[in-house]
Amino acid sequence: MYRLFDYLPSGNGYKCRLVLKHLQLAYEFIDVDIKSGGSRTPEFLAKNPNGRIPVLEVPGKGYLPESHAIIAFLADGTDLIPEEAFDRGRMWQWMCFEQYNLEPTIGTARFWVSTLGKTRNELGENLIEKKKGGYAALDVLEEGLRGRRYLVAERYTLADIALFAYTHVAHEGGFDLAPYPNIRGWCDRVASQPKWQPITAK
Amino acid sequence: MYRLFDYLPSGNGYKCRLVLKHLQLAYEFIDVDIKSGGSRTPEFLAKNPNGRIPVLEVPGKGYLPESHAIIAFLADGTDLIPEEAFDRGRMWQWMCFEQYNLEPTIGTARFWVSTLGKTRNELGENLIEKKKGGYAALDVLEEGLRGRRYLVAERYTLADIALFAYTHVAHEGGFDLAPYPNIRGWCDRVASQPKWQPITAK
Repeated sequence: MYRLFDYLPSGNGYKCRLVLKHLQLAYEFIDVDIKSGGSRTPEFLAKNPNGRIPVLEVPGKGYLPESHAIIAFLADGTDLIPEEAFDRGRMWQWMCFEQYNLEPTIGTARFWVSTLGKTRNELGENLIEKKKGGYAALDVLEEGLRGRRYLVAERYTLADIALFAYTHVAHEGGFDLAPYPNIRGWCDRVASQPKWQPITAK
Repeated sequence: MYRLFDYLPSGNGYKCRLVLKHLQLAYEFIDVDIKSGGSRTPEFLAKNPNGRIPVLEVPGKGYLPESHAIIAFLADGTDLIPEEAFDRGRMWQWMCFEQYNLEPTIGTARFWVSTLGKTRNELGENLIEKKKGGYAALDVLEEGLRGRRYLVAERYTLADIALFAYTHVAHEGGFDLAPYPNIRGWCDRVASQPKWQPITAK
């Protein structure tokens, strides 16, 4: 059985949980307390030298870090990945965008504010920079969803799961989604998928 | 014929050029002067609302941004992508690591220092932060290459191309690769591949 080394509030971990649940794959959730250094112990670093969750243990194969590598591995050959090559390219385009532009801004702001409990005063200019980058990413996502129900190939794919994870909790980092009607409608569609579960569920 | 909207010093663009050359795919190089705002014009933003190069124009399909989405699309079904699912997951693990940990540190430091010509004094604390993150990424890469000739599946794959692009010019951002023998040996192996070409060639 798969084992997922994860931290419940993590959006990156949540992507893996959504795919595991959607595909009805059995797994054991292993809680790693990243706030107290649980992902920096020698034992954990042997699984992922980069010291980050999530990590998927694949029986007989080894440990696989990086949320998007994990979900692509789990969903290989399923309808969560488009069959047509250009559509699959488009899916990866959105997933790369998420890791480069959305997660490091919206995800990090949320981690500082919501998980670590830091105040706006403590964070100062760093938070202002993250807000600027995060809203720029939301602008791109809003435009990408114009006239579309899902990001790619007119159906629910890994791209939707990957971008939903931090976007739907952006308010926890101080972002306001009110000016983004396309994003809000799409979030509702993702959350109404069969087997969907909230970020608070293992 | 493919058209690649690119900027010659870009490591992200270079990944696409290496794959196009390796696979002997014909393409037209379209120079975008990102230093004078060439990737922020209305015409360019219609191709990529995220305002970044590289972008691949695929005849009959559309415009595909994001270097790793582009190289995965181009190399689909070739020996640059492992056939075995876990190996393919491992390839994406390294490519995600590159976009999250290596490119934003080593790539950005190089852009500031080498492309924009900024001095250490001008950059101050920002450069120190990038150096710290960049060396941490190099540590992970050095460890990942221990006892291996290539990153994944004991052969040359997209993972090697993706990580080589900024690593082999890390010195242009002020990084010293002398303490990293595994990385230096691997860089030599990548640069000795058939059809390899330097970052300065279109």
